[in-house]
Order: sequence, then structure tokens, then C-alpha cells
Amino acid sequence: MTDTSLKKLVIIGVGLIGGSFALALRNAKIAKHIVGVGRSQKNLQLALELGIIDTVSDDLATALQQADAVLLAMPVGQTTNIMAQIVPHLENGTIITDVGSTKQDVAAAAQKHLGQHLKNFVPAHPIAGSDESGAGAATANLFHNKHLVLTPLDETSSQAVQQVTSWWQHCGAQVSQMSAKKHDQILAATSHLPHVLAFTLMSHLRTISDNDPDGLLRFAGKGFIDFIRIAGSSPEMWRDICLANREELLKQINIYQQELTCVQTMLNNNDEEALKKAFIEAQEIKKTLDKK
Amino acid sequence: MTDTSLKKLVIIGVGLIGGSFALALRNAKIAKHIVGVGRSQKNLQLALELGIIDTVSDDLATALQQADAVLLAMPVGQTTNIMAQIVPHLENGTIITDVGSTKQDVAAAAQKHLGQHLKNFVPAHPIAGSDESGAGAATANLFHNKHLVLTPLDETSSQAVQQVTSWWQHCGAQVSQMSAKKHDQILAATSHLPHVLAFTLMSHLRTISDNDPDGLLRFAGKGFIDFIRIAGSSPEMWRDICLANREELLKQINIYQQELTCVQTMLNNNDEEALKKAFIEAQEIKKTLDKK
Repeated sequence: MTDTSLKKLVIIGVGLIGGSFALALRNAKIAKHIVGVGRSQKNLQLALELGIIDTVSDDLATALQQADAVLLAMPVGQTTNIMAQIVPHLENGTIITDVGSTKQDVAAAAQKHLGQHLKNFVPAHPIAGSDESGAGAATANLFHNKHLVLTPLDETSSQAVQQVTSWWQHCGAQVSQMSAKKHDQILAATSHLPHVLAFTLMSHLRTISDNDPDGLLRFAGKGFIDFIRIAGSSPEMWRDICLANREELLKQINIYQQELTCVQTMLNNNDEEALKKAFIEAQEIKKTLDKK
Repeated sequence: MTDTSLKKLVIIGVGLIGGSFALALRNAKIAKHIVGVGRSQKNLQLALELGIIDTVSDDLATALQQADAVLLAMPVGQTTNIMAQIVPHLENGTIITDVGSTKQDVAAAAQKHLGQHLKNFVPAHPIAGSDESGAGAATANLFHNKHLVLTPLDETSSQAVQQVTSWWQHCGAQVSQMSAKKHDQILAATSHLPHVLAFTLMSHLRTISDNDPDGLLRFAGKGFIDFIRIAGSSPEMWRDICLANREELLKQINIYQQELTCVQTMLNNNDEEALKKAFIEAQEIKKTLDKK
């Protein structure tokens, strides 16, 4: 583990993720002084009271002065705007990193805005979360034993990658590296598509119940409740994620539709053997996950 | 609560559901003597050792002699066969009830086989379960605060309905009545379709990973793990359930495909407003469930 302390860390968006990163690095005695920047003064004041940040700043120029690192942890939809706003104030040695759920769009925004600072930009995605949001939900152990994926650009320096790796390791995360494209494919399959399927099942319940799903939901069992838990996620956030990764997601929805059509055909043909085989194979894949 | 004690209760299939029913009625001091019938001698011996049943029988004629009630709790695929086997030995006053996950097929099997005993047949479905199976997984409180749906036939006597209602209430269940058709529609939406979607997502992971889903599954988060929990369910059981309710399930898969195509169109058109609206409506339906 490379040890890289931060005299000054700027966090833009001190919510669940940004706040938890701050707490974890403070606990690990890596971050000395943490500056919070954000849209909601109420949330920033709370972060201050909770000891997540040391100061609040509403001026990016001052905030970024002599900053060792800046973490972009605001909603992904704002990435392009924020990059454009910070770039005039970035110092030559400031590391820039983010926590966006999609990475190809973040890479494109960086290519567009960060110019000479690209060598210091390390795109990252911590695969961790909670039903809650805001600074009040932040905890120092949110990333403990969770995956953290780095998707460095061709321009990103290995030194910057090492530093960001070290910070996340201090948060307790398991750090991996892959291309932004690979990341977005994996996340489409294990996160974005499942969210779309769960949201769609909710619409389905409304459709088949003539707009009165309560009568159906009364009889929901535990399996169903687990299955549709992710349909409770923030609609705005998921709209943004789905649009940010829309090409890969569209491709996968298409493949999924074909797989579902195969099951339809098996049912139509009363094909006991094919259905059993398909369900056994599915269960085997599910079991691999249980062993992890 | 009608109080109806059972001098002799016969349970065909002493697994998780049959065994839990036995334990609950024994705890409530409703069932005096419980006879277990089944294919696996090992499971029946275990049920005996655990005090779930009082005797094991491999002869239906003897088992059903002077029985107050018989519970059909073997896998649904065997319903027709078992009905044909028990009917010669049923006494005039023996109540017959079942626990099948689909009810129109059970009603059809009963119409075919039970003849004059139809008045005593009360189809039932306890909406409760566990990842485990067999007598060893049975617990007296499995049905506590769970839904139990009765789908009486036109021929079923109200007295038989009252008795079965009373037994399930003694198990702690909330008893409702509806038509078999309505039951199968509701369960297709809240259980059968979700299982198909989860199984299909497993096939999808294999397809898009070139038959190597492990690389994807490494990065699965908690939301995903909850979402695909039901893909761990018994493939044989779910094959049988899907085929038993295939017409309604096919209809609903078709509607679901259309709903998914709508989301595809929104993504294709980059329609931020429509996507947000769809996800907000979905989240609202999900929230109704949280209030239950």
C-alpha cells in the first residue's frame, strides 16, 4: 500500500459517497484538511457538524488552491459542467478523481475539458451504496471490502493511479483496473439492466391490474420484495445512469428480450426438458455468486 | 375462529410446507394424530424423529381410514396422480386440501378425479417459503402473518371452507378467498414472472460474457444479489409451476416485453422526461409495498 497523505482534499458533493470517502480517509489519518463544496448549504453545514469536512467553500478558486486532490462526488449528470468549472483553478499537481457509476461518459467529458490535467485524472467507481443519501448517511466503513474499479485514461499517469489506489485501499476497498468500456458492459449487466427490469416490473403490475397494483402487492412474498428492492432507487439518478450508458444498455436490453423470447417459446411448446435445462443452468450461475 | 380439531390428519409430502403445517397444528393442539406419507423414507424418518408426524404409512388405504383431513403437500407436478390414487380410499367426511402454487390446474385435476368428494376439496396456497426444503426445514411459525389464499370450487361446501380456514388461522396465517383464475393472475405477476425474469437474467449474464459469467459476478453489488436471489430456487419446481400456469404467464411475459420495449424507445430517443416519469411511477408503486 503506497502511503500518500493529503494536506488538502476538496470534495465536490458531500453526500453518501463523498462523505464516506472523507470519513474513511480522516479515520486512516490520510486527509489532514477536507474542504466541502456543494449546492445544498444545509447538507454542507450538516457535514461540518458531523466532522466529515473541516471547511465549506462556495468559491472554487479558493477551494482548489494548493489542493492535493479533488473528488467529484456530485450526481453524474453534472460531471461535464463541474469539470468545465474547476479546470481554470486546477494546479499542476492536483489529482482529480470521481465516483461516477458510468465511466465512458466521464472519460469523454474529461477529454473535452481537462486538457493538460488529463495526466492527473483517475476515473473511479466504488461499487457500494445504500438506500439513504446525503452527508447524514455517510459512514467510514461504507467501502470496506467493497469493489472499487479504476478506469484510467491513456493519458493518466501511473503515479496518479497509484495515489488514488492507495486512498481507496485506506477506505478498505478492493481496487481493480479495467477499461471504461469493459466497466460499462459489466455494470450494464449487473446493475443498469436489473434496475430497468425492476422498474419495468412495477409498470407491468400497474398495467395488468388496471392501474390498481395494491390488490396484487398485498400478496407479495419475500422473494418478490427482494426482487423489486432496487425499484426503490432514485428515479433521477437512474435516469441519468441509464442515459449515460445508453448504447450498452440498449444492446443488452435487446439481448435480454431475445433470451426472454426463448423462454416464451419453451413455454409455448410445453417443452419440459428445455425449461428445466434453462432453469438448472440459471441456478448454477446464481450458485457461483453464493460462493463469493 | 371456528375450532375444529383433527383426530387424524394425513399429510402427503412432509416437506417444508407439509411439515410446518403439521408442527403448527400440533402446537395449537388442533391435530391429535398425524400420519406422514411420501416417497422418501429418509425424509419421513426424519419427520418422525423431529416429532412432526406420529406415524409413517406406505399404504394409502390404511392411512386414509377415518382420516378427518388429508393435506396434499407433495410437488405440484404429482397432484393429478395422487388425487387418482387417494380417491378410492377417501371417506365421505374427509376434507381434502392442498398447498399448490397454482390453482387452476389443481381445480382441473380435482374436477377430473375427485367426483363426489369435490364438496370436501378446498384448494389452498400458503404464500410462504424458504430457500431450504424437506422436513428438516419445517418450523411451526412458517405461516405466521403470511397470506393463505383459498380458491374454493363451486362444489366446495362452505363447511369445508370454514374448517380449512380455521386450521390455517391456527397456523397464524391471514386467510383470503378468491377465484383460481384471479389467484393465478396475481401469482403470475408477483411470483412466476419475477422468477422467469431472474432465471433469464442469469442466462443473459452467460450470453454477454461468452459463457464466463464469473468475471461479471465479481462486481455484483448488494442490489444485484437481492434481485437474483429467486434464481436460486428449485429448477424442477419452477419448471412445473411455470407450465402449470403457462397461459397466464405467457400472456404476462408478452405484456412485460411490450413494457420493456417502451423503455427501449425512451432510451433510443434520449427522452429524459419520459424515462424520469416512468421511473418515478415505478418507484411510487414500490413505495406502496414498503408501507405494507
